Amino acid sequence: MGDAPFGLIEDGALACTDGRIAWIGSMRQLPADARAAHVEDLGGALLTPGLVDCHTHLVFGGNRAHEFDLRLNGVSYEEIARAGGGIVSSVRATREADEDALFAQSLPRARALLADGATTLEVKSGYGLEPESERRMLRVARRIGAELGITVRTSFLGLHALPPEYRERRDDYVALVCDGMLPALAAEGLVDAVDAFCERIAFTPAETRRLFERATQLGLPVKLHAEQLSDQGGAALVANFGGLSADHLEHLGEAGIAAMATAGTVAVLLPGAFYALRETRLPPVAALREHGVPVAIATDCNPGTSPLLSLRLAANMACTLFRLTPEEALRGVTVNAARALGLADRGTLAVGQRADLVAWHARQPAELCYWIGGNLVRQTWIDGRPL
Amino acid sequence: MGDAPFGLIEDGALACTDGRIAWIGSMRQLPADARAAHVEDLGGALLTPGLVDCHTHLVFGGNRAHEFDLRLNGVSYEEIARAGGGIVSSVRATREADEDALFAQSLPRARALLADGATTLEVKSGYGLEPESERRMLRVARRIGAELGITVRTSFLGLHALPPEYRERRDDYVALVCDGMLPALAAEGLVDAVDAFCERIAFTPAETRRLFERATQLGLPVKLHAEQLSDQGGAALVANFGGLSADHLEHLGEAGIAAMATAGTVAVLLPGAFYALRETRLPPVAALREHGVPVAIATDCNPGTSPLLSLRLAANMACTLFRLTPEEALRGVTVNAARALGLADRGTLAVGQRADLVAWHARQPAELCYWIGGNLVRQTWIDGRPL
Ligand SMILES: [Zn+2]
Ligand SMILES: [Zn+2]
Repeated sequence: MGDAPFGLIEDGALACTDGRIAWIGSMRQLPADARAAHVEDLGGALLTPGLVDCHTHLVFGGNRAHEFDLRLNGVSYEEIARAGGGIVSSVRATREADEDALFAQSLPRARALLADGATTLEVKSGYGLEPESERRMLRVARRIGAELGITVRTSFLGLHALPPEYRERRDDYVALVCDGMLPALAAEGLVDAVDAFCERIAFTPAETRRLFERATQLGLPVKLHAEQLSDQGGAALVANFGGLSADHLEHLGEAGIAAMATAGTVAVLLPGAFYALRETRLPPVAALREHGVPVAIATDCNPGTSPLLSLRLAANMACTLFRLTPEEALRGVTVNAARALGLADRGTLAVGQRADLVAWHARQPAELCYWIGGNLVRQTWIDGRPL
Repeated sequence: MGDAPFGLIEDGALACTDGRIAWIGSMRQLPADARAAHVEDLGGALLTPGLVDCHTHLVFGGNRAHEFDLRLNGVSYEEIARAGGGIVSSVRATREADEDALFAQSLPRARALLADGATTLEVKSGYGLEPESERRMLRVARRIGAELGITVRTSFLGLHALPPEYRERRDDYVALVCDGMLPALAAEGLVDAVDAFCERIAFTPAETRRLFERATQLGLPVKLHAEQLSDQGGAALVANFGGLSADHLEHLGEAGIAAMATAGTVAVLLPGAFYALRETRLPPVAALREHGVPVAIATDCNPGTSPLLSLRLAANMACTLFRLTPEEALRGVTVNAARALGLADRGTLAVGQRADLVAWHARQPAELCYWIGGNLVRQTWIDGRPL
């Protein structure tokens, strides 16, 4: 990448071999032998790495449009919860769906993200909350990757919410997650990383620590839903485990930021949830910049708080709502998002990187954050092959 | 339409003849002879009228992504304006583009709106601000309608901004618009309605009145950008001329609302601009409801304050940011939007209405407002013909 803003190369050219970037530079300097191979003229279209959506919950049964409707008609959260709404309704619908139904319902969401330029997706479990349903979610995530020919990285999120049947036995549920589900699912190769929701309404730092210790024993990287609604010290906790990322972070304080900077833990910002929940407390973007914490942006695609099907729109929201610069937002959906997944082989246009590429109906990188909605994708390549 | 929420007909069926809806009701009651004709099984997909985007500025040259980038990098509005940015940069780029270039640049924006379900678009002039360029914008708007086979309604917005060359002669410019451009463009059949931007930074109520008087003489309906940044009494002014709509309205007061209710003038809310400008003053939704003022929602698609390419996303923003119910938002992008354009032949599913229809990847109407981004359109018909 050049030193120009966004690392943009004007009149750039790129050569691929065996699914990797073999050469990149300006058209004038393209080696003669590269010219001999198959050539595509993009007519000056902007080319970027395939986008990376590093935080989604896109596998789930049903949706919560009816609840969205009720809330806007003045029904309170409490009434909705009493009527079986909220996250438990997604848990119920996910448990009820068999693997094919869950796949059929979830695939269009992955397709929507891919159509918008995301060629690598993270997908979490966490609406099953019992062994077979968690397993089914992760299997569906893997199947989506195979079906679309894209990379899907799975995160096991058994500590997403306390399932209703464990209301009086939370220690038993934490034990089941840490000692039952996690080792079993990991043994099946279904778990690329381990996540939890550390919050007053979810799990405590102590419970999270117990999970992370078990993940570490199993050699699995950790990440965390941290500091979304209050400062629980979750960011420092996950950083102390050398975690890949701490996600949400509206209530992140200085101690957490310093710990993340030291550990190289990525700050994943989720402006879709901020937007949908009409939050007003902003994540500490200036302090993250000062401490040099890498910042990623993701959709948080989920049925309750962020039914967001476009990573580019998440980048626009990061600029509009969080005041990231377009360059920061674009690093946030490419190189830093890849880092949040522990992937060093993508997210930049550089020799040796995976040839996951998107050519856009745009000339300038900032346009990808500027347009709100619409479909700007002109052509996508995965592993060097056109989609 | 039934009395159910959203007027939804479960297991509905619809028959079309000659581009019009000939019959609508429940599948069980479908007349036997209707069954004889060409039949499409939508498999339970939600069917709605084609959406109507009743306020766009989608014909323009260039874009303002670079300015978006500068602002997020801390450059002030004043510095950008001194460097030739802001609306004058769009005026310059629009004037410089010939008709084919303007068409080529603008068509993809109309296509994006159509791909998202909008089968009727309003398009304004107002980046030419001199006779030939205003004419070119309106011709391009008509050409887009012909190219895509959709209805495009034009609004002449000569009073959008004072062009730089008239800075010291604003009366001369208003006279040129009212007595020169408007009659000439109307005589060419390029003007379906007349619009203005009534605001401290744009045109006064007196200047707006002069334009509206001329429009009325010519038999053209009027509409107005009113009460966006301050209460200028614009809504009452346009209502007193029997105007189709008053648009924006964040600063609308009781007097304006009462005048609109009396005149039947539609309130067009533009949440994309509210979002992009990070406004905090909400339009008076509760008072509009109380007074029974019909409310429409539009994209305001424009290069400066709302580069929004999805009407469905505008509807989501209307729910999320303005707290409209999904049913209000959907009426706002269908029947009330049609009314804001003076069109009574579309925007509902009823016998005799144009067969502009969209089948969605959704089961419940609220889903159209709930999902943020993505492409939910399954099939579109215009005038009874599949797209
Ligand atoms: Zn999440
Ligand atoms: Zn406007």
